[in-house]
Amino acid sequence: MMRKAIPEASAKRLPIYHRYLGFLHSAGKKHVSSDELSEAVKVESASIRRDFSYFGALGKRGHGYDVAYLLDFFNKELHQDRLTNVALIGMGNLGRALLNHNFYVSNNLRISAAFDIDEAVVGKILSGVPVYPMSDMVAQLRIQQLDVAILMVPQEVAQEAADHLVEAGVHGILNFTPIRLTVPEQVRVQHVDLTSDLQTLLYFLDHDNG
Amino acid sequence: MMRKAIPEASAKRLPIYHRYLGFLHSAGKKHVSSDELSEAVKVESASIRRDFSYFGALGKRGHGYDVAYLLDFFNKELHQDRLTNVALIGMGNLGRALLNHNFYVSNNLRISAAFDIDEAVVGKILSGVPVYPMSDMVAQLRIQQLDVAILMVPQEVAQEAADHLVEAGVHGILNFTPIRLTVPEQVRVQHVDLTSDLQTLLYFLDHDNG
Repeated sequence: MMRKAIPEASAKRLPIYHRYLGFLHSAGKKHVSSDELSEAVKVESASIRRDFSYFGALGKRGHGYDVAYLLDFFNKELHQDRLTNVALIGMGNLGRALLNHNFYVSNNLRISAAFDIDEAVVGKILSGVPVYPMSDMVAQLRIQQLDVAILMVPQEVAQEAADHLVEAGVHGILNFTPIRLTVPEQVRVQHVDLTSDLQTLLYFLDHDNG
Repeated sequence: MMRKAIPEASAKRLPIYHRYLGFLHSAGKKHVSSDELSEAVKVESASIRRDFSYFGALGKRGHGYDVAYLLDFFNKELHQDRLTNVALIGMGNLGRALLNHNFYVSNNLRISAAFDIDEAVVGKILSGVPVYPMSDMVAQLRIQQLDVAILMVPQEVAQEAADHLVEAGVHGILNFTPIRLTVPEQVRVQHVDLTSDLQTLLYFLDHDNG
């Protein structure tokens, strides 16, 4: 099926819809209106209807959306119908915490290989995940056919590590470093920046109340 | 100064601009064009000009933006001109990692109090931060006049914890739980959801290449 690219803001809401639809489905609910969804996920119902419209006519006016159909649809869109293995590059405090994080248990996402330069962890299996030396990264990513990587290295080596990821054929990078990476067009970078999130929150605190 | 609220997407780019301007300033650069900024921070220059226009006329055509002026402006907007203390609610793996995370060193943000129910950590000082029992949370937040909290509790108790934060007078919550919190209008919630970020990345991988 060909269709237009959806806006990034809409794409970012898909996992939120997906999670709530899974909840409704578990509770035995068959239909849901955009107003009900809106109330639960804190997104305006007009935005929900517009987001859903990008996928074609998924609901009927007055009838609401079919929960099972939508859940199945989002499962496929978000790769939740199959296990996705990802690589973790850099095993600092945050990296180690992420290994214990349960997203790979509950969401068909799994960190299946980790990489670091620290000899104290290289060659070990931490939280069930083997840790390889950075010098083997390109080779291992290719052998294990890993397409997605979580980048958590120090910022000084972030671009260099990203270059190696691209060389290894990785197409998606979840970038936890503050560096704006330069990558070829076919590689997608998603930024996670806790400091920025906190700063944005502080910005809004002043301006919502002012 | 009164002015219109800026769009959330623009507000989220402010920390990115701020960081790069700090870098330029350290390097002794006096002016920067929107094209140069665009190349460095990977934001289209039209978006940069529009974002900056929300703050009034900060640059002159053909002359570029004044780096020192902009940096000072963003410092104030993002609270970087003073220390902001925040509370950490919930000390799981990710919470402990965050205590070691350097954002409070480099960005005038500091976690100054942590809260948990685990008796093994309550009453201790971890990474320089005192850990209080959850039962003291409302009282301590008031005494320490903490206005911002990072919420990292299990999702089952997230709404209850948020209710207590509101009761204690907190106005900003950085929400790491998957729950869409219900809070009064004057409280701002910023969502951080690593699973969603990864799912969004997977979604784009299919659709960029398809």
